[in-house]
Amino acid sequence: MLKRENVSLSVIRRLPRYHRFLADLMRTGTTRISSKELSRRMGLTASQIRQDLNCFGGFGQQGYGYNVEQLHREIGLILGLDKQYPAILVGAGNIGRAIALNFDFSQMGFDLIGIFDIDPSIIGMQIGSLKVEDAAGIDAFCREHHPRVAVLTVPRSAAEQMAEQLIHLGVSGFWNFSHYDFSVKYPGVLVENVHLSDSLMTLCYMVRDLSEKETRDN
Amino acid sequence: MLKRENVSLSVIRRLPRYHRFLADLMRTGTTRISSKELSRRMGLTASQIRQDLNCFGGFGQQGYGYNVEQLHREIGLILGLDKQYPAILVGAGNIGRAIALNFDFSQMGFDLIGIFDIDPSIIGMQIGSLKVEDAAGIDAFCREHHPRVAVLTVPRSAAEQMAEQLIHLGVSGFWNFSHYDFSVKYPGVLVENVHLSDSLMTLCYMVRDLSEKETRDN
Repeated sequence: MLKRENVSLSVIRRLPRYHRFLADLMRTGTTRISSKELSRRMGLTASQIRQDLNCFGGFGQQGYGYNVEQLHREIGLILGLDKQYPAILVGAGNIGRAIALNFDFSQMGFDLIGIFDIDPSIIGMQIGSLKVEDAAGIDAFCREHHPRVAVLTVPRSAAEQMAEQLIHLGVSGFWNFSHYDFSVKYPGVLVENVHLSDSLMTLCYMVRDLSEKETRDN
Repeated sequence: MLKRENVSLSVIRRLPRYHRFLADLMRTGTTRISSKELSRRMGLTASQIRQDLNCFGGFGQQGYGYNVEQLHREIGLILGLDKQYPAILVGAGNIGRAIALNFDFSQMGFDLIGIFDIDPSIIGMQIGSLKVEDAAGIDAFCREHHPRVAVLTVPRSAAEQMAEQLIHLGVSGFWNFSHYDFSVKYPGVLVENVHLSDSLMTLCYMVRDLSEKETRDN
């Protein structure tokens, strides 16, 4: 496998995007692409792309461009998408259920093995191939199945305690949809935050800013 | 209102986070906080916080810390959360429905005025106070109600054409959950991307990277 020490987070964050664009190219039957053409489509510079890929040893031959399918596969391997890390989802409300139903975790490196909630009206509900289990059983479940990762889709009020409990049970990575930033308290734990309301508020700022500019310019 | 020209996107992205932490402080009855204590809780430096807030004219008095409620309100105004920009949601599948149900758009600067889908089994469905409308009627709806923003929760295959259609209809901001990066093609349009699968793949990379380090160290 390829050398990849101290790759910066910004490079890592671009890898899924390369993976996605390459999948698009495969769907449209493109078998080979130059870094120049790929950069044009992705809104990056060709040298940026070459630099990013060089972090992992580089791909493609000078003047021949990249083999789309091969690069897609290699980036998938770098991301670890061929793995099946056991994962649980905690909080089967609207967002939790949508995530469980919409994502093929097995295509993204994970095996979703359990879904938990505390709400009696949700416990027992069938979501895809899994039934929602009572969150009271999380301890026993984790001791038996050792999930590596948890998708946290609980409300803010429950997030702090649940994160702490799961960390003590050996969960070392979180896909965190809750409004609680526990990465501050647990710097050693891997946390990928999806703060949807932060994102919507950022859009609001941009819209407001543009509106004010338009008003000034008229 | 405050001076705020050329504020960097990284500062803007931190504003919703300040807003969230301040709301937490209000909930626990804290009325005043030093930049030092706020920075400790947020995992930033005190000087970073002062610099960020100075972009908007600064708040708080030297030595007295910040008035929590006032700062929360001011940041809300800077973000434009008091506005009610008309917004529509296109694509009422699992994710779209969860977003429509879970977010109080009116608290985040937007007024959700329409939800659209093409699926006959979804059209007519009640989601909160709105009924899902036939996407065939989007043109007429936009000409009448002039939505400023669209939440795009359609599949990749529909995203490109729908984004183009909405841009031509005057929509100038997108909360984009689709896998299509149309900001490359339309650089003037405001796009806040939520690429959930990119985020999950990034977590996979981090988990894999940690696992390999653990294996090497043992």
